[in-house]
Amino acid sequence: MSKLVECIPNFSVSKETDPVVFQGLVDTANSVPGCTVLDVQTDGDHNRCVFTMVGSPAAIEEVVFRLTKKATETIDMTKHKGQHPRMGATDVIPFVPTMDMTVEECVEMSKRVAQRIWDELKVPSFLYEDSATSPDRVNLAKVRKGQFEGMPEKLLQPEWAPDYGERKIHPTAGIIAIGARMPLIAYNINLDTSDLEIANKIAHAIRAINGGFKYCKAIGVMLEDRNIAQVSMNLVNYEGTPIYYVFEMVRALADRYGVRIIGSELVGLTPAKALLDCAEYYLKMENFDARKQTMEYHLIGME
Amino acid sequence: MSKLVECIPNFSVSKETDPVVFQGLVDTANSVPGCTVLDVQTDGDHNRCVFTMVGSPAAIEEVVFRLTKKATETIDMTKHKGQHPRMGATDVIPFVPTMDMTVEECVEMSKRVAQRIWDELKVPSFLYEDSATSPDRVNLAKVRKGQFEGMPEKLLQPEWAPDYGERKIHPTAGIIAIGARMPLIAYNINLDTSDLEIANKIAHAIRAINGGFKYCKAIGVMLEDRNIAQVSMNLVNYEGTPIYYVFEMVRALADRYGVRIIGSELVGLTPAKALLDCAEYYLKMENFDARKQTMEYHLIGME
Repeated sequence: MSKLVECIPNFSVSKETDPVVFQGLVDTANSVPGCTVLDVQTDGDHNRCVFTMVGSPAAIEEVVFRLTKKATETIDMTKHKGQHPRMGATDVIPFVPTMDMTVEECVEMSKRVAQRIWDELKVPSFLYEDSATSPDRVNLAKVRKGQFEGMPEKLLQPEWAPDYGERKIHPTAGIIAIGARMPLIAYNINLDTSDLEIANKIAHAIRAINGGFKYCKAIGVMLEDRNIAQVSMNLVNYEGTPIYYVFEMVRALADRYGVRIIGSELVGLTPAKALLDCAEYYLKMENFDARKQTMEYHLIGME
Repeated sequence: MSKLVECIPNFSVSKETDPVVFQGLVDTANSVPGCTVLDVQTDGDHNRCVFTMVGSPAAIEEVVFRLTKKATETIDMTKHKGQHPRMGATDVIPFVPTMDMTVEECVEMSKRVAQRIWDELKVPSFLYEDSATSPDRVNLAKVRKGQFEGMPEKLLQPEWAPDYGERKIHPTAGIIAIGARMPLIAYNINLDTSDLEIANKIAHAIRAINGGFKYCKAIGVMLEDRNIAQVSMNLVNYEGTPIYYVFEMVRALADRYGVRIIGSELVGLTPAKALLDCAEYYLKMENFDARKQTMEYHLIGME
């Protein structure tokens, strides 16, 4: 089987604000064999675009370097305006393990890419999320605080030296946040009650911050059109906190309030493995190996 | 998304009995872009080999024609000896829908391929399984009865005219069974009892032949080394009879005998979709679309 990694780099330009520069990035994203562009999002108000790409580690490392080079050459942050917080032409580069990869391997990738970007392009970077070199740098919002305009001053503060590069931004490309993280699963469970308070109590019980599951964030939400309450979750590491953990715990807690689960939903893309793990759990499967036993995994693994 | 079809042609030769002819088939199997060879099995005692291939419908049609041509040119059935029943150099060609394909589309494929094999190679064929033109021809064992040596006489019987070709075999390549079928899932459920009779009663209740699920075959089996009884099943259409149907029914029936399910197992390759359907069921998912929402399906769909 071959290793696969996802990369979702964000750039400070949009098709709406500069179609030529945008198209240059699109062409670059498609320039490396072994890398597939799954999705490109662009937002004129944010003046920002996001590429979702997947491929072999070597292909992804190469394409994201080429993209950063292209962005450095064609985007001038001194002239950038947009609603979304940003600090660089290439703003964020997250690496996400997809198949036969560990998050540790993605951390190594993030460091190699950050080093090469500094060596060849002279653009500095912070490591963030699982690649972070201090707890202060895990959260992207904290790292990016001050944005492009405030970075020259921030980099001079004792605790904010870049992880790669000198204590000054690239004059036109700024500075980048580079890091590894597990895929995020947006998962919601609907209850047969219109009492938002029950959803809030359940969310309170299952989320990490209050002592619940380590990789679960949760809030109660009212679905006004259906007049039902929902437990809305982000699962930030489905290997540590599988979907069926939260499903079974929400079921148990709902029962305590005399309420039932009437449905659930996944928002956006999810690794199939997170769902195959649920099938394995509910069917009490013995010795199941999704990579060896499902035809689709075989297909992806073939070169 | 792109359509994918699986094809598992069987040929009357083995690596052990004729490595040169065998290698000729292997090379031919790998000669068409868009077709991936997942597995090749060869058995000297059976004097037979089986290719598991997957690809676009056009690529699969082409590669299976080329394989049949190669087998027709290089295998002489008048000299073939082996333990496995067989009637042709190319013995069986099953087409199995894998992604974004219906079994009806595979039936059309089987007919096109059978026509081309007759037109260009003058090898006749029977359509079988879901492609069968009469109930007598659904079962491969019935179609193949008499084997290569008995076929000249069998073809002269009123009810056994080939579906394609004349009422006589190809002198050295015999005749082929060609057809479409759903993927077969080999699935077993283990019970916490050493009473085989309970597994037999459950198997009796859930299988099609006694009035159970339409696409389920089942028997009770004793796992001697673990001293437990097992319900051993073949699910021949997981869209009609999903895995969770049989799991929940076995659970209910086991409960009636005071017995519990302690585990289950899939044997060999399974379409991931059959398991994603189970996750969807147990998580009560609303509006889930495996093809749109799992990253792996996106990857396979990309060209």
